[in-house]
Amino acid sequence: MKLLSYKRDGRETWGAVVGDGVVELAGPTGCATLAEFIGSPGYIDRDALVAGKAAEVALSEIEFLPVIPRPEKIVCAVRNYMDHHQEALAAGLQRELSDFPPVFLRVWRSQTAHGAPIVRPRVSETLDWEGELAVIIGEGGRNIAEADAYKHVAGYACYNDASVREWQFHAKQIASGKNFESTGGFGPWMVTADEIEPGRKLKLETRLNGEVMQSGDTSLMIFSIPKLIAYASTIFTLATGDVIVTGTPAGVGFGRKPPMYMKGGDVVEVEIEAVGTLRNPIVDQA
Amino acid sequence: MKLLSYKRDGRETWGAVVGDGVVELAGPTGCATLAEFIGSPGYIDRDALVAGKAAEVALSEIEFLPVIPRPEKIVCAVRNYMDHHQEALAAGLQRELSDFPPVFLRVWRSQTAHGAPIVRPRVSETLDWEGELAVIIGEGGRNIAEADAYKHVAGYACYNDASVREWQFHAKQIASGKNFESTGGFGPWMVTADEIEPGRKLKLETRLNGEVMQSGDTSLMIFSIPKLIAYASTIFTLATGDVIVTGTPAGVGFGRKPPMYMKGGDVVEVEIEAVGTLRNPIVDQA
Repeated sequence: MKLLSYKRDGRETWGAVVGDGVVELAGPTGCATLAEFIGSPGYIDRDALVAGKAAEVALSEIEFLPVIPRPEKIVCAVRNYMDHHQEALAAGLQRELSDFPPVFLRVWRSQTAHGAPIVRPRVSETLDWEGELAVIIGEGGRNIAEADAYKHVAGYACYNDASVREWQFHAKQIASGKNFESTGGFGPWMVTADEIEPGRKLKLETRLNGEVMQSGDTSLMIFSIPKLIAYASTIFTLATGDVIVTGTPAGVGFGRKPPMYMKGGDVVEVEIEAVGTLRNPIVDQA
Repeated sequence: MKLLSYKRDGRETWGAVVGDGVVELAGPTGCATLAEFIGSPGYIDRDALVAGKAAEVALSEIEFLPVIPRPEKIVCAVRNYMDHHQEALAAGLQRELSDFPPVFLRVWRSQTAHGAPIVRPRVSETLDWEGELAVIIGEGGRNIAEADAYKHVAGYACYNDASVREWQFHAKQIASGKNFESTGGFGPWMVTADEIEPGRKLKLETRLNGEVMQSGDTSLMIFSIPKLIAYASTIFTLATGDVIVTGTPAGVGFGRKPPMYMKGGDVVEVEIEAVGTLRNPIVDQA
């Protein structure tokens, strides 16, 4: 099942994909947001909500929102694909692999929806793509064991952890370059966890103006999804709707010779097998 | 004027300090939270709300909440005092000063109130103190110029950016050690900006079990409050109630010989001139 957040008549709502369209579910469930629904008792019977229903509006006509518009927490892994680690070393970014997952935080305000612009800020010439698999947390918890981690996954989505490289490298802490407003593409929907077997290898491709830039699969992750969930939940309670962004494979712009970056007029896509394709135009900040 | 968040009859509310007690202001203002009030038109007439009123309940009897319990963003500066930078170098943490403020993010769930415990997690033996001045944002904005920055400051509070050092040093990214649940002491109240002249040098002292550990003043900041606000607001829109935590002076536990850390039964205090004293017992995670 595919669940998504979108706008209808100017207000935020959410629903399910049915065929080429959407069925709104905020009303029938009494849940104002998708995150609220994921945490509700009715979530388990979600298939029944759309059984026999026809789409109310075409996907091509809705204004998408980030899958979870305002997650309490967005925990992102750094250099979590071995091939990306190698390209970063080759680009001169020396670092030893760590025994624990390196993570940073994004704020929800840095997110942008499927179809909405990723904004290249005026202060940067080095807006780069990072196609990533996002994990959406269902049942929250603290100190979640690796063996139990998949039970806490509600679903998966595409994420573009677009990065402002000059700002990322202002200091050792990369949060500044990873949090520019309207840079983190998140969509178009989440595919519920029942459709994707735990640990399944998923192909991931990022394209810039149709040209393949990243082509990898999730088996190259250094720290697995269960390890990331266990690590993060040792620090704080994971809440329903929290997002774990799992890192990017090789092929980012700063690792190319010469480096390549995104600018106004470009279109970037992140496609993940069994999940979907996230597409964003690039717009220069006014 | 001192404004604070607290619990009354089990529900969250907020009010103002009057003498040795509190006057609740959620009802009279129609603002459910202190952050909402700071952003409301009525904020400018705040003094009139308590004129002639007597305290309704003693400060000693209330359950404090973090000054802003759930800020949208908590932006923290790293190594922002020259003397702390020197002690970190002496402790073997090599790093050059950067041209831009190094910042990381805290999540609201990492906060804890005045009088409430700072929790030493089971996974750590190195829970350290960091007394800091917190700035609470009033009117929000993007791309705020340094010259305008103080117009966006609603007030000041004490913060204890308590840090789990092993986890902070798991990788270059320090977010994990800075976000353990119930570690970021924030209180007891905020002093409104009209009471503290912009740029005023404020003494800051951190005490562990009554013994002075940090003794400095805010003139030793490397990046000033206006620089931090301008930098952060270039990345994203600052929202009313956002918190900028401005860094810590020398005297933290890991810089001592031998190093010294906090454990269950300890009491840590952060006192800032003209602002107040934040006090937290340390409790070991169950």
